[in-house]
Amino acid sequence: MKHGNKDLLVHSNGTIEHMVIMNTVVGCEVNLYNYPFASDFCPIAINVWAISGCGMFLNFGAVSTTSANRGDWLTEAVELDAEGGRDDRNYLWVSLKMRSENPFMSLVLPSILIIVADVVSFSLPLGGGERISFKVTLVLSFIMFLIILNDLLPGGGQCSPIIRKHFCFCLVILVLSTLQSMVLTRLAKCGTLRPCSLSKSKDLLLKDTDNEEESKSDIKASEEENTAFQKVVKFLNKMAAQDQTKAIHLCFANKVDLICFCIYLTVLIVYAVVILYFSFGSRCEINQLDFWS
Amino acid sequence: MKHGNKDLLVHSNGTIEHMVIMNTVVGCEVNLYNYPFASDFCPIAINVWAISGCGMFLNFGAVSTTSANRGDWLTEAVELDAEGGRDDRNYLWVSLKMRSENPFMSLVLPSILIIVADVVSFSLPLGGGERISFKVTLVLSFIMFLIILNDLLPGGGQCSPIIRKHFCFCLVILVLSTLQSMVLTRLAKCGTLRPCSLSKSKDLLLKDTDNEEESKSDIKASEEENTAFQKVVKFLNKMAAQDQTKAIHLCFANKVDLICFCIYLTVLIVYAVVILYFSFGSRCEINQLDFWS
Amino acid sequence: MKHGNKDLLVHSNGTIEHMVIMNTVVGCEVNLYNYPFASDFCPIAINVWAISGCGMFLNFGAVSTTSANRGDWLTEAVELDAEGGRDDRNYLWVSLKMRSENPFMSLVLPSILIIVADVVSFSLPLGGGERISFKVTLVLSFIMFLIILNDLLPGGGQCSPIIRKHFCFCLVILVLSTLQSMVLTRLAKCGTLRPCSLSKSKDLLLKDTDNEEESKSDIKASEEENTAFQKVVKFLNKMAAQDQTKAIHLCFANKVDLICFCIYLTVLIVYAVVILYFSFGSRCEINQLDFWS
Amino acid sequence: MKHGNKDLLVHSNGTIEHMVIMNTVVGCEVNLYNYPFASDFCPIAINVWAISGCGMFLNFGAVSTTSANRGDWLTEAVELDAEGGRDDRNYLWVSLKMRSENPFMSLVLPSILIIVADVVSFSLPLGGGERISFKVTLVLSFIMFLIILNDLLPGGGQCSPIIRKHFCFCLVILVLSTLQSMVLTRLAKCGTLRPCSLSKSKDLLLKDTDNEEESKSDIKASEEENTAFQKVVKFLNKMAAQDQTKAIHLCFANKVDLICFCIYLTVLIVYAVVILYFSFGSRCEINQLDFWS
Amino acid sequence: MKHGNKDLLVHSNGTIEHMVIMNTVVGCEVNLYNYPFASDFCPIAINVWAISGCGMFLNFGAVSTTSANRGDWLTEAVELDAEGGRDDRNYLWVSLKMRSENPFMSLVLPSILIIVADVVSFSLPLGGGERISFKVTLVLSFIMFLIILNDLLPGGGQCSPIIRKHFCFCLVILVLSTLQSMVLTRLAKCGTLRPCSLSKSKDLLLKDTDNEEESKSDIKASEEENTAFQKVVKFLNKMAAQDQTKAIHLCFANKVDLICFCIYLTVLIVYAVVILYFSFGSRCEINQLDFWS
Repeated sequence: MKHGNKDLLVHSNGTIEHMVIMNTVVGCEVNLYNYPFASDFCPIAINVWAISGCGMFLNFGAVSTTSANRGDWLTEAVELDAEGGRDDRNYLWVSLKMRSENPFMSLVLPSILIIVADVVSFSLPLGGGERISFKVTLVLSFIMFLIILNDLLPGGGQCSPIIRKHFCFCLVILVLSTLQSMVLTRLAKCGTLRPCSLSKSKDLLLKDTDNEEESKSDIKASEEENTAFQKVVKFLNKMAAQDQTKAIHLCFANKVDLICFCIYLTVLIVYAVVILYFSFGSRCEINQLDFWS
Repeated sequence: MKHGNKDLLVHSNGTIEHMVIMNTVVGCEVNLYNYPFASDFCPIAINVWAISGCGMFLNFGAVSTTSANRGDWLTEAVELDAEGGRDDRNYLWVSLKMRSENPFMSLVLPSILIIVADVVSFSLPLGGGERISFKVTLVLSFIMFLIILNDLLPGGGQCSPIIRKHFCFCLVILVLSTLQSMVLTRLAKCGTLRPCSLSKSKDLLLKDTDNEEESKSDIKASEEENTAFQKVVKFLNKMAAQDQTKAIHLCFANKVDLICFCIYLTVLIVYAVVILYFSFGSRCEINQLDFWS
Repeated sequence: MKHGNKDLLVHSNGTIEHMVIMNTVVGCEVNLYNYPFASDFCPIAINVWAISGCGMFLNFGAVSTTSANRGDWLTEAVELDAEGGRDDRNYLWVSLKMRSENPFMSLVLPSILIIVADVVSFSLPLGGGERISFKVTLVLSFIMFLIILNDLLPGGGQCSPIIRKHFCFCLVILVLSTLQSMVLTRLAKCGTLRPCSLSKSKDLLLKDTDNEEESKSDIKASEEENTAFQKVVKFLNKMAAQDQTKAIHLCFANKVDLICFCIYLTVLIVYAVVILYFSFGSRCEINQLDFWS
Repeated sequence: MKHGNKDLLVHSNGTIEHMVIMNTVVGCEVNLYNYPFASDFCPIAINVWAISGCGMFLNFGAVSTTSANRGDWLTEAVELDAEGGRDDRNYLWVSLKMRSENPFMSLVLPSILIIVADVVSFSLPLGGGERISFKVTLVLSFIMFLIILNDLLPGGGQCSPIIRKHFCFCLVILVLSTLQSMVLTRLAKCGTLRPCSLSKSKDLLLKDTDNEEESKSDIKASEEENTAFQKVVKFLNKMAAQDQTKAIHLCFANKVDLICFCIYLTVLIVYAVVILYFSFGSRCEINQLDFWS
Repeated sequence: MKHGNKDLLVHSNGTIEHMVIMNTVVGCEVNLYNYPFASDFCPIAINVWAISGCGMFLNFGAVSTTSANRGDWLTEAVELDAEGGRDDRNYLWVSLKMRSENPFMSLVLPSILIIVADVVSFSLPLGGGERISFKVTLVLSFIMFLIILNDLLPGGGQCSPIIRKHFCFCLVILVLSTLQSMVLTRLAKCGTLRPCSLSKSKDLLLKDTDNEEESKSDIKASEEENTAFQKVVKFLNKMAAQDQTKAIHLCFANKVDLICFCIYLTVLIVYAVVILYFSFGSRCEINQLDFWS
């Protein structure tokens, strides 16, 4: 708070004309709860030192604003007010409103896009590994956005911006959806979540020992063409049986996947309603004048 | 605004010679609407405190510039002007022009390259999973550029730079193109967007039970070689039928992909015309002198 | 430490009324050992220069706080205290408590999610390369979080925050789990950790030379259909034998994988207990008043 | 520019001994054109206020440097010079040279490594999708380096550092090489750049209807073993024919790839010669004394 | 360097008692050669202006330290010393030691982990593309760490920290190991580094024309079952021959890979010994007192 000018103009009737240009930098904790749609009031207290009738008194004239339309915050209105009707507690009541265009584009829109991409990624086939790598890349992209958010937003305070909780929820739901895909990939390949290799490999061993025996007897005997031919048929039958069990597993996993998708969609819709209500319907109130309490 | 020198030179005729070197740091909101091809005017008001005939008056001489060619901004011209012909409202009218070489290389060029890579990635085959992973990596690269942009550009203000909207559009179109690839991948594999596993697996089950019955009867009877041979033929026929349905699905998906590619290219060309018009044809005007209004 | 006001009020009885508003910025090293659940005390020493009976003495009145609820730190209580009962060593004892909501969401929660994703990724099949790429992406995501952490946390000091050690442990266990998956992938493909290509390729060479001989004799003789047919059977048998050895290797690798998973889970549970004890049960004490020692 | 000491020493003969320690922070725009091998001269003008014979004159003694070997810039020489022989326009002519070790390691070396990796990645097989994912990851890594560069380098000015153009060229050539790989991957799979699915799928349909007819007649007649056997032979022949067309496509794509590789290598060699000439052979001159013009 | 207190205490015997609290911020170039195990001495010169017997002299008492245990640097000892026994060149000799815990955890440990992961990744099979993608991801992770390092370390100076060279070496060896994997992948698939597609595709063409001829003659003649059967056998033999050449190529590539692995391991061990010697055995000496030379 520096006086802008050191010149005094003393009129002949004893009054002193003095122009003070105060360039004040005011630290005003703005309520960022509805960020990036935040709008808040900021009181700038102007008081002089006056104890027991002795001191200076201020007479305020009209207040006008200039350059209200620049920067990230729009100055909507400035009013001169006094707390509780007391003369010595004047303050300027500055209504600020955020320009929500840029943060909406760089923060809210990408999070919506990533969630939509996650929903559509349920259309990728389950077994091929593409869905998992896609979802992991989505999580990675989301962490990128968290880094951007971290640079843009202040630390919090009493009314922490609700967009932090929104990003947190998005991260959790992305990770959960990735985990679901992983578990269903195993389900589609093994048909069970238990360590499935033992029973399956036993089957393979039995089959192989059969083959071994047959091949030995094949070398010994080699009598009939039919026997050899039947082996080919048996081999093809076994391949078909393996295909069949694979198809049953895949069918089961696809059903579970469909159920999970419905649950996921329901959770997202409920969440969208809740977050819209909290963003626009409610307000976190801060008593901006508590330094006079 | 510090006086550079404390020495006065008092001539014998009463005039005082005083050299003032004012190193002023002027905060001038520059119009970055056409960034990185921005050029703007910046008024520096120089006024003294003079009320009702009493005070100081300034006589301005000629204005010359030095070091106009350094830094990110070129100082094109400096003129001394007065608002509305009033003597006490003089200002220096500084024409600035941005060096658009570096931001063009580090911001505009990569975004064009990424969009071109996205267009060319339509030539990747649909079913192999390569196209999706490629497009997701493009989205990831683009987010990288958004981080760079976020550090380079100021927050916006009244005339938010149009390059922000450009990047936003690029992100949306990249994500949409990725979603389209995902949906078409499913279409190429299943032939329908509905949960396709049920009907398909029923077919497989029917086929398998046929095989089961045949294999049982095969073990019982085993009379003719022809029967076994026909099974092999039947197996090959079924593989060919599966290949056929796959090819029909792939053919249908490729047709849809071609249509999407044409739509995508049309949108890009229309967008290029629009963004070029807004970047070079229009101008966002800021009244730089509104602090005197 | 600037005096806020330059006015004095001299009463008629000789006492001088002087209001001092000291906006002091106090550098107080806060104990961040339990970050983000940190809470600490911060002494603000207020002493005047008084040597051997000559100087100024301070009489402190009551202390009240305003705006205790803003910013990242909650001011819980402020007490006026004196060290060792000496009059000239007064200090304000400020109890601070951190808002642990935001750092918990942006630091602790993602690390837990990544560890959970790493545990669940054991359900991915071993041989397909998906598990390795997934785990590597997890490590990459984790490094992203380390970058965020690096910006958020101060450098350390005497009581370095335990969350640094937590992140370090997470990184080590993620890398170890990735290495385990790599080694088991080789085990599943080769059955041994030694350079396995030599013996295996010898087998293939033997088989191939057999085939070569047979094909030569086949071109020479070509007498019996049975001989040709037996070759087909032999070919199928060799394929089955290769499948068998692959299945044995996969079965063995899956067993080792199951054991590793149990060890990994045990280590994680033990670690969770230890880290919870150190975070909440213990305290790193700093003597905040050692500048008077 | 603060005087370091307030003491004067008045000798008996009337001369005043006054030691002035001026810690000056000089903003000198250094020519970073050859960055990181930059070396430049920086004039520090020292003039006093002397108009029309009245004022102060400076007698400069010898100039010596201390601590010339610290920090990122080496101070090679400091000379006292005067512009055009005028006494009142003295300046210190400071020769600075950059330590090029660190930026070479962290900027130039990685860009060379990435270009080399891109050249070697032409050895990866064309059809498998590995080359594309590798090249995309290279582009991603390169963007990482651009982020590092952006933090390290100043914004440019008149003589923009040539390393920015170098990085820009690297990015363009990496993206072009990725696009070439994508187009050749399609060429290797389809043999043409036109939408190739239609003709190919018609072939498959014809083949399948043949199979359908044959299978119907097969169920009806089932007379001869030979007919069934010939179908197997026909099936194998068709597979061989498909392999043949695939091999022709792959062979053609490999030839085009070889030609592209030669062009790419030629462009890189020409570029290396050009960039070496511009880095070491030429110089961008800035008139450092233009503030006196 | 501000005087902390403006009060003087004048004793009756003429001596003036004056307490000066100097909060000095000293820029001391610390030797970071052994970073993060750096420890250095920092001289703080305290001299008064005294020329030719006239001036002020300082009598130093005992020196004691407070708060030596806070921040990133431990103050080990503070000694009052004089250069060359001269009275007017006193300095405080402050021994500083870095807390190496945090930078070791966030810089050295991850680099060791990444190198270990690179060594273990040699166990991944050569042909599947997994090893290359893994190594590329490692390079990407390493670049992440370079970004962290760049923010943490100062620019260098005379004794540039050896950890920069360490990271540089790690990057080079990671890239070299990736290039080696790429070349060996080609070797495993083609058996030669020359453009291998031409000869291979000629073989395929020959085979295919054989097939064409045979299929034509097959349609013409169709006399014997044996002829058809031999074709099947020939087809299988060709597949086996292709498998054989693939196995020979893979075997050769695996041998080369084993040799490369041994060379790589040797280089790493030699490097570890060298870097340990330079980190702990040697010291880069800076003459801290050269401002008095």
